[in-house]
Amino acid sequence: MLAIRNIGQLVVVPAGPIGGKSMGSVDRIERAAMLIDGETISWFGLESKLETPADCETIDAVGNCVIPGLIDCHTHTVFAGSREREFVQRIEGRSYEEIARSGGGIRVTVEAIRAASCDELVELALPRLRRMLKNGVTTVEVKSGYGLTVADELKMLEAINRLKALQPIELVATYLAAHTVPREFDGRPDDYLDVVLDEKVLAQVRDEELAEFCDVFCETTAFDVEQSRRVLLTCKKFGLTPKLHADQITQIGATVLAGEVGAISADHLETINDAGIAAMREAECIAVLLPGCSYYLGIAQAPARKILDADLPVAIATDYNPGSSMVESLPLVMNIAATQMKMTPCESLIGVTTNAASALNRQGCIGAIKVGMQADLAILDVPNVERMVYEPGRNCVRTVLKKGRVVG
Amino acid sequence: MLAIRNIGQLVVVPAGPIGGKSMGSVDRIERAAMLIDGETISWFGLESKLETPADCETIDAVGNCVIPGLIDCHTHTVFAGSREREFVQRIEGRSYEEIARSGGGIRVTVEAIRAASCDELVELALPRLRRMLKNGVTTVEVKSGYGLTVADELKMLEAINRLKALQPIELVATYLAAHTVPREFDGRPDDYLDVVLDEKVLAQVRDEELAEFCDVFCETTAFDVEQSRRVLLTCKKFGLTPKLHADQITQIGATVLAGEVGAISADHLETINDAGIAAMREAECIAVLLPGCSYYLGIAQAPARKILDADLPVAIATDYNPGSSMVESLPLVMNIAATQMKMTPCESLIGVTTNAASALNRQGCIGAIKVGMQADLAILDVPNVERMVYEPGRNCVRTVLKKGRVVG
Repeated sequence: MLAIRNIGQLVVVPAGPIGGKSMGSVDRIERAAMLIDGETISWFGLESKLETPADCETIDAVGNCVIPGLIDCHTHTVFAGSREREFVQRIEGRSYEEIARSGGGIRVTVEAIRAASCDELVELALPRLRRMLKNGVTTVEVKSGYGLTVADELKMLEAINRLKALQPIELVATYLAAHTVPREFDGRPDDYLDVVLDEKVLAQVRDEELAEFCDVFCETTAFDVEQSRRVLLTCKKFGLTPKLHADQITQIGATVLAGEVGAISADHLETINDAGIAAMREAECIAVLLPGCSYYLGIAQAPARKILDADLPVAIATDYNPGSSMVESLPLVMNIAATQMKMTPCESLIGVTTNAASALNRQGCIGAIKVGMQADLAILDVPNVERMVYEPGRNCVRTVLKKGRVVG
Repeated sequence: MLAIRNIGQLVVVPAGPIGGKSMGSVDRIERAAMLIDGETISWFGLESKLETPADCETIDAVGNCVIPGLIDCHTHTVFAGSREREFVQRIEGRSYEEIARSGGGIRVTVEAIRAASCDELVELALPRLRRMLKNGVTTVEVKSGYGLTVADELKMLEAINRLKALQPIELVATYLAAHTVPREFDGRPDDYLDVVLDEKVLAQVRDEELAEFCDVFCETTAFDVEQSRRVLLTCKKFGLTPKLHADQITQIGATVLAGEVGAISADHLETINDAGIAAMREAECIAVLLPGCSYYLGIAQAPARKILDADLPVAIATDYNPGSSMVESLPLVMNIAATQMKMTPCESLIGVTTNAASALNRQGCIGAIKVGMQADLAILDVPNVERMVYEPGRNCVRTVLKKGRVVG
């Protein structure tokens, strides 16, 4: 048994998904305490009512704030190579095409992934995950999508799965072979899909439990709506739950497709329209916003307030990747959501906890402060969650617990 | 004697000020080494040419990048209280006036400063400076301006000066009594200036070396051009070098005044016009941009490219303060300058090193890699400076040296 005492503010995030209209407030208990029995929360409430069992270990929160462990529900954390050259070219005003012509863009990462062994991918990802943990992150979704051959996509999934045993963060794997059309299939996207949607491949992903989710980049430069539908429905037959990169740059109906195929989440949404919002609401699809990406590219953000006002449940993630969002810090992304999207700290906290859990189909286990829930927690060194978002660029996380164990 | 070996890339920032047109490139030595004799750089060059003296201590840079220690030339690091409530209200769309009416705004900080002892101000600032040091910052300018009585302004300056002996960062004090008109002088700004520009007060600041610079917030809501001129010219007579908060919200001619009074820097510049640029160029005035502030407020950035194209020497600073820029990380601000202002990593590196040194009249001592310069250095854990800016929200600084001594 473990007790956390002297909690100045316990933010009682309820189990989600929570619609946008209800994300603006959350119960908070001042002068609180919590009991953890093994891996789960067994009691919480006013410290004055705490009955400490014998042989109970104690953590002193020294009057600060306790929140659920953060959940980063959209990342590309397994990658190789570095693209700072392209970052500078973009700042200098070079177009995407120019950058691609001079050897930049996603293909840089694809080549680096193909050249790397699974061991190397694991070694490269470990320090990233270690730093994410220090920021209070206890669950991270990671996508494949830089291999773009069957072998390299499976290598990426294998790396994600091997990382599960090597560090404390819970990892969730997504099969994103349909991230972009590889050079070898230029102009032949359907032929590429034939390869990565092959039944034997998908059966292997299912049988070896290599991924829980499938994903597709539904965009004029990648896969159109019909191709995306094929990706998601085919993968769904093999037990993978659909997600989409939707409405990022061009409005081609990706969020309507999200509703149609019953996607658990549609992610990005910078160009979402009313039809997409309606389809997502109908399908109870989570809206995953990626403020770090638009910030990083210096382009317009998704219309967060419009999406919240439509009562869609909103999650927030880093989109951590070496091209468009080299932002590994979820707390920094919460600040970007505040200053650039006008989401309050309470809204973004729900977006990185229970609604992110919902986007990963884990709302019953993580992301909330509730008896019986997994004791994934971040103990801050500030008195309230607003303060954490108010101070970007500083790590306000003092102690991290995963399944009731101090891990950071 | 101290040697730094195995430097993958030594960024040879020259002594400034460096005009905007020349900020885009800088010499870099690959496979470099450096010798430090006491407090200063005594040699640097190719590692193959290094002649290590006997009894020489060694630091291994393990193939990574070495840059000058960063200089934050515009901050309000000494403050009391916290304003996350107002931060949330602003996100919720409340106007500045509403926030002020409900008890928010700068007056919150003024009241907290007045209620605090000098000891308390010192204790509050120490952890902030400790974290800044960890980000590679070795020199920080700090302003008064939240006391707004003679006693409280002097208390702030005293706090800054006491902090010099308590931690390794070099601190530079600025007298900013003319930050805003205090409540007690509502509608009577000139009467307030009579008090804080009193000859005895300024003589004390001079005689006790309490500040090197004076500053004024030249803005419709604070002090107009005539009042600002009076502040700067009066302080100048007592040996304080003028700086201005200029052209932030309203264009009232503050940068023209900067040129007229020979200010060493004009800071903010979000609404600068051609006349202001011409006046600053004529006066060889440093343009200090504060990208974190506009980012934090979610408003338009200063026209950095226009200012660089006009060949003004540009510095970058955090404007770290509890109201409009609770951003203590200068590396994060370099990323904001990149993504939101289109300044390259090289330009922003010069902006936080030698040009920031110039804005503090220290271009002969710090901010450059040059024999005889103070050995203020940041050893990164990444191979080049672009990588540091490319990865915001992660601390890429491994070791910090101040005057040749490892301090972080």
